[in-house]
Amino acid sequence: MNRVYNFSAGPSMLPLDVLQKAAAELVCYGESGMSVMEMSHRSPDYEAIINDAEAMLRELMNIPENYKVLFLQGGASTQFAAVPLNLIKRTGKADYVVSGQFSGKAYKEAQKLGYDVKCVATTKDDNFDHVPTVTKDMVREDAAYLHICFNNTIYGTKYPYIPELGDIPVVADMSSCIISEPVDVSKFGVIYAGAQKNMAPAGLTIVIVRDDLLDYAEEKMPTMLEWKTMAENGSMYNTPPCYTIYMAKLVYEWILSIGGLEEMKKRNEKKAALLYDYLDSQDYYFAPVKKESRSMMNVTFVTGDADLDKKFASEAGKAGLKNLKGHRSVGGMRASIYNAMPYEGVEALVAFMKKFAEENPKA
Amino acid sequence: MNRVYNFSAGPSMLPLDVLQKAAAELVCYGESGMSVMEMSHRSPDYEAIINDAEAMLRELMNIPENYKVLFLQGGASTQFAAVPLNLIKRTGKADYVVSGQFSGKAYKEAQKLGYDVKCVATTKDDNFDHVPTVTKDMVREDAAYLHICFNNTIYGTKYPYIPELGDIPVVADMSSCIISEPVDVSKFGVIYAGAQKNMAPAGLTIVIVRDDLLDYAEEKMPTMLEWKTMAENGSMYNTPPCYTIYMAKLVYEWILSIGGLEEMKKRNEKKAALLYDYLDSQDYYFAPVKKESRSMMNVTFVTGDADLDKKFASEAGKAGLKNLKGHRSVGGMRASIYNAMPYEGVEALVAFMKKFAEENPKA
Repeated sequence: MNRVYNFSAGPSMLPLDVLQKAAAELVCYGESGMSVMEMSHRSPDYEAIINDAEAMLRELMNIPENYKVLFLQGGASTQFAAVPLNLIKRTGKADYVVSGQFSGKAYKEAQKLGYDVKCVATTKDDNFDHVPTVTKDMVREDAAYLHICFNNTIYGTKYPYIPELGDIPVVADMSSCIISEPVDVSKFGVIYAGAQKNMAPAGLTIVIVRDDLLDYAEEKMPTMLEWKTMAENGSMYNTPPCYTIYMAKLVYEWILSIGGLEEMKKRNEKKAALLYDYLDSQDYYFAPVKKESRSMMNVTFVTGDADLDKKFASEAGKAGLKNLKGHRSVGGMRASIYNAMPYEGVEALVAFMKKFAEENPKA
Repeated sequence: MNRVYNFSAGPSMLPLDVLQKAAAELVCYGESGMSVMEMSHRSPDYEAIINDAEAMLRELMNIPENYKVLFLQGGASTQFAAVPLNLIKRTGKADYVVSGQFSGKAYKEAQKLGYDVKCVATTKDDNFDHVPTVTKDMVREDAAYLHICFNNTIYGTKYPYIPELGDIPVVADMSSCIISEPVDVSKFGVIYAGAQKNMAPAGLTIVIVRDDLLDYAEEKMPTMLEWKTMAENGSMYNTPPCYTIYMAKLVYEWILSIGGLEEMKKRNEKKAALLYDYLDSQDYYFAPVKKESRSMMNVTFVTGDADLDKKFASEAGKAGLKNLKGHRSVGGMRASIYNAMPYEGVEALVAFMKKFAEENPKA
């Protein structure tokens, strides 16, 4: 076994301990006589797994009792539609912050569905090199919610604050930063996340929604997108993505075993500091994101020369540092250093960056 | 390892060869240095997997070139909404056959979305003990499509024929019979199936749709439910359920290796015959489904005594024959004998049935 360091933005690395445990019990789980993949979702063995997964996520994130936790399918992209379909009826209009590609997609999806939605802030003119500062006076008083993308995977930015909007719920896409550090769930109305970055393989979406926000669903909407229906059925209105939920459970268990989100944050800060400190210490590479908006999960940088960027990603790949090419829409490099990326992976990256800079002087 | 025979209606057994292969390469796939679970869906390694999966399914089912194959999320329940959202605009109305619980749900979902849908045939008054005979004159001339559920998991019935409706497309939910035997795809406009019975773990939905039916999507619908968008993006409009697709690929590979759907059908017929022949040979157990509608995948039977039924399922479970309890809405027993159930499993079941009948004489 010759494992590489995989800097993919998602799907992305999983903890080796988790993969090894999954492999060991893949064919036969405990005393069940079958794989978790084969279990009826209504069997006691499987119910224990999904209940444990929820309990562990609640413990990890310190989720208040008046929030439901849903295990769904379809990715954040499905929630781009589900959010307005479930919430906008509260007042009939909603506000969005566009801080990157995915928040832009969420905004467009709500528009496509025919809703009165307004972009109240964007950093598009600055090529999304930071997140906007959103204050209460910028949001419509009768907005059903404000939608933000808390960590912008493609640009490598993250909100250093949570908007304070009084009674207007903040809805946050946390796909690329969930469970990377503690967050005060009670400051949000809804948190959702595709699991394929920090939680599990692709195919699972987590929705954490405050109880009182379950009563605004459109009548004529696909039942599978109704949070209330899913909450009332314990995420089992139909067959959930059982095995992916099991994998998420193993990941939650791993984080709890190392000390929870406080320890996770320490490790992530240490990894990010190593990389950003190096970036700030030299002038061969340039980090386009403004310091106060820097993401701890996705670190973007460029050489300033598109050909060199291309060579960098290619040679890094050959050296066992995979998927460092930036998103196809922005170019450059991006190192996604999620929970499962070990410190040694970032050390190897920085060493490679130094070597590459020496061997490839700029003209 | 002490594997049981798992008669669950879904999620259900997977071939042991497939599970063992998946376990062996879970931590590191080939020369990639990572798990399939960790692969970027846009990486060459993963693209080869999803392309192989599609090519193998096309070969297995002999899918004509003018049909798209989509790998989606959300289960058949999501398609209950997606079908009318993608198709009804063709004429503005659609017809449904209600032959059990899931076809009833599909019909109700279309009604809920506000569409002009009509139930043109049902066997509800016969407690769904057979499927209706549907002829062209029963279907509205200007129906956008006719929706049927080809195999009814809960009741244990299957269409012994394909409705012939001229230009009106037949849309079939094949969740519980897909790739169990050859089927003439060209006789359908759309075939869809949750994968968790015959194909893969839960969390993957297959949609096979004829090209010319991609042009009727509602404008105001969730983008993630648009077949055309998914087709244009090779099922990668967003991150697909990558690992579950990989598992499906292993299952397709396994079926191709044993001789494809002709051989699969032979094996399934042999298993079903063993069980139905026994049921027909005695009068302790009763098979409620009319012979011409019998499913080869889900075999339902009762003792006629609810307490005995309960005892049967419980004792069978202790004997390593799991999940034989009928669906909670109908009671009795149900043996789901999908592709991955070995002949020996059905032999063990029949032996147990004989023993139970001897040991538990009726009053």
